[in-house]
Amino acid sequence: MPEEFQQGVTAKKCENFSEWYNQVIQKAEIVDLRLGIKGFIVIRPWGAKIIEKIYDLYEEELQKRGHQPTIMPSVIPESNLKKESDHIKGFTPEVFWLETPKGSERLALRPTSETLYTPMFALWVRSHRDLPMKLYQRGAVFRLDTKATRPLIRGREFYWIEAHDAFATKEEAEAQVQEDIEMTEKVLHQQLGIPFLPMKRPEWDKFAGAEYTIGSDVLMPDGKLIQQPSTHLMGQKFSRAFNAKFKNKDGKEEFLWTTAYGPAMSRILVSIISTHGDDKGLILPTSVAPIEIVIIPIYTKKNKKEILEYCKKIKKKLEKDHRVHLDEREEHTPGRKFNEWELKGVPLRVEVGQKEMEEQTLTIFIRDMKKREKIQLKDSKKLKLLKREFDERLKKKAEEKLKKSIVECKTKEEIKKAIRNGKICKVNWCSTAKEGVPCAEYIEKNINADVRGTLGNKKETPSSNCVICGKTAKEVVYIGRSY
Amino acid sequence: MPEEFQQGVTAKKCENFSEWYNQVIQKAEIVDLRLGIKGFIVIRPWGAKIIEKIYDLYEEELQKRGHQPTIMPSVIPESNLKKESDHIKGFTPEVFWLETPKGSERLALRPTSETLYTPMFALWVRSHRDLPMKLYQRGAVFRLDTKATRPLIRGREFYWIEAHDAFATKEEAEAQVQEDIEMTEKVLHQQLGIPFLPMKRPEWDKFAGAEYTIGSDVLMPDGKLIQQPSTHLMGQKFSRAFNAKFKNKDGKEEFLWTTAYGPAMSRILVSIISTHGDDKGLILPTSVAPIEIVIIPIYTKKNKKEILEYCKKIKKKLEKDHRVHLDEREEHTPGRKFNEWELKGVPLRVEVGQKEMEEQTLTIFIRDMKKREKIQLKDSKKLKLLKREFDERLKKKAEEKLKKSIVECKTKEEIKKAIRNGKICKVNWCSTAKEGVPCAEYIEKNINADVRGTLGNKKETPSSNCVICGKTAKEVVYIGRSY
Repeated sequence: MPEEFQQGVTAKKCENFSEWYNQVIQKAEIVDLRLGIKGFIVIRPWGAKIIEKIYDLYEEELQKRGHQPTIMPSVIPESNLKKESDHIKGFTPEVFWLETPKGSERLALRPTSETLYTPMFALWVRSHRDLPMKLYQRGAVFRLDTKATRPLIRGREFYWIEAHDAFATKEEAEAQVQEDIEMTEKVLHQQLGIPFLPMKRPEWDKFAGAEYTIGSDVLMPDGKLIQQPSTHLMGQKFSRAFNAKFKNKDGKEEFLWTTAYGPAMSRILVSIISTHGDDKGLILPTSVAPIEIVIIPIYTKKNKKEILEYCKKIKKKLEKDHRVHLDEREEHTPGRKFNEWELKGVPLRVEVGQKEMEEQTLTIFIRDMKKREKIQLKDSKKLKLLKREFDERLKKKAEEKLKKSIVECKTKEEIKKAIRNGKICKVNWCSTAKEGVPCAEYIEKNINADVRGTLGNKKETPSSNCVICGKTAKEVVYIGRSY
Repeated sequence: MPEEFQQGVTAKKCENFSEWYNQVIQKAEIVDLRLGIKGFIVIRPWGAKIIEKIYDLYEEELQKRGHQPTIMPSVIPESNLKKESDHIKGFTPEVFWLETPKGSERLALRPTSETLYTPMFALWVRSHRDLPMKLYQRGAVFRLDTKATRPLIRGREFYWIEAHDAFATKEEAEAQVQEDIEMTEKVLHQQLGIPFLPMKRPEWDKFAGAEYTIGSDVLMPDGKLIQQPSTHLMGQKFSRAFNAKFKNKDGKEEFLWTTAYGPAMSRILVSIISTHGDDKGLILPTSVAPIEIVIIPIYTKKNKKEILEYCKKIKKKLEKDHRVHLDEREEHTPGRKFNEWELKGVPLRVEVGQKEMEEQTLTIFIRDMKKREKIQLKDSKKLKLLKREFDERLKKKAEEKLKKSIVECKTKEEIKKAIRNGKICKVNWCSTAKEGVPCAEYIEKNINADVRGTLGNKKETPSSNCVICGKTAKEVVYIGRSY
């Protein structure tokens, strides 16, 4: 660990979140920002291992639901990218182009891969019997973001999974969009303890080329929302652009219905860090903790050998059910080790000294509560229970926080006040179609916040008129500041 | 499956390997070449799953030996790439450059990542206590290859792991080079059944920037050699270029010793296909077969329901120990299914009909021998044994082929004849340092073959003078044609 990072986190999460975040990601050895390429960062082993685990969780859910892996080129020919007009309009300003070798077509680094998958659907799907076709890839995408970049939050290269699915009917495609939200619920909320608002974005804020987009908004400690996995109903827009058809049951040709879903691992890591971390550093849910249990031997010169041997025995016993690490480094004191693993967010620490060895017990330090508990070595169920309770606490705490931060607002003044206090406003709203633009602009200009959308998996009915223009409200929307 | 690929492989592997290869990779749905971007291809689910398994095998071996994952940017600033003079000379013609946003440094798509890892070593390593530092990443690299591209063999984007390690001494770095060869032995030879010659490359054929390179040469069916994972002793060349130092035990600053190792998953897939495949298609070692056992129900209208239920029971029983797939598609005959899974290389097929159900037996078709064997359903050990024997046969066959193809040659004429017959020549050689260039050029110009190098993990002593110039031979080299 470089010397400048040897001290712990000095910023307070609730006082200066931005500084806390920048310290934590570096001191916990998640990233290194010193390579100095704008928008591109180095992810260190601790971060890479967490990201790998998030990938694993997602790939498992995708495969369970019939998705198959593929590997697409990292580049897209200009003619592909230009086929769907809304898509190219939205993405052109953000594309990295390659210097083109003589005589060949101009190539872009992929910002997203609809224009690679749809032409392949056109080749792979012949008849309704080939449907649904559900594919995905894990990999990097590139966007020449002109806004300020922030490590893991907004970068020019990020690591994601993109799933691209093709269906015979609109109904099946829309059911997939809902299944995508279920996958976000399963991984983000249930496994990682991060609750979210599935937000059907307003017309003016959907993915370039989509019929509609449902994003997942997650609360950050500063009260702002960050977009996590989003899912898009592409309808027949891309299939028409690429002439991707299939023969239906009556033998007639129809255009495919497609969807896309994109969880970004590097961004999910942001929410893990921000949602669960505390002033000591990271707190990692057990599902993605590279180490779930760290064993720290505490010895004197006299009992060193014995204690270390006993620790090895414990490790062997525990690693059948848990990811365990025994920290044997001689150059560091137990206290220094305590701090380091707390900073890195390891859920449970086992402290082993003379007393524990004699009693055949384990002293367990629980990261989130910063509390010790003594258990019997032979009680193997207890550790599993402690892990389950740990994950449950993280989730509950985050759920309560999100719930508390949503306030119903009846007037512009209430919205202003709520936003100033870092809240999310639930309001009656005229329309998230084009007619609603003036009201949304009012929010943006006067309150410095965004209309994030309507609930994407449940219909909510407005109880009175639009909070801004006073006309009939068709929808209930959520307003918040965002990353 | 598109109609044009519905028929099986029509080319014979031993008569027209090139055509056989092109048919197999497409008909077995490994790749799709129809996207039409020179050097970039689409890898379909069957191919992507095999590649994922090769990644798994490698990551396991790397982590066992103390390597930690990292994620580096896909781009390299021009100034980094230019720091080591031999490196930039070797790689410049092959680099894809990005069109540079105003006011920022020119960026290359990474062709390899020494110039990203070494500056990080300079930041991360302070003292000998931080060493060794063993890192790796999985991901894509990009090379603007100007030679003819061939799918999976030579492309402009390929998928690999690159391991970059730093050490305190040359001895430790050289030991790592040998450990890298051991990993190739473990994965390529032992787990995938692909024997190789570890070849210490001649001076004129080493990696741009390395002190020396040891490649792994694998035999292709046409008698040519293809380079598989190579490992490089970088010595202190990159650490000097990036001022990457550490404090030794005496408190003095020294430059790091670094190594690099690069197994390319897409290329290893080439050798799996070419080494083990036959005229029916792929034959996959069980370690990377996405499906190890496919169950094909054989029923009449009368016993359909019963047979399918019985098949599901078998599946449930077998999938505890094997990757199993039950092919229930109604639109295809058993015969058509047999052909499809043989083409795709599934090691074992279980055929289940009335008789098998009554006898509580399994009829197993073994892919490489094209032979059936009947086993008792309750004999769960037998299937494991069949798999082990299957893998063992693939390996043995490949070993014998490689062994037979190496011939000792005492004269130029013998070399010519052997190369014409698709053999690898073992000869006494003056030198693989610069003095040997004229002799190597003779081989290249007159025999259209290359000096591949000396054995990289064992010293062989020449028995007489150089086969070309007649001067004292210092080495024993291997000569062959190559991809």
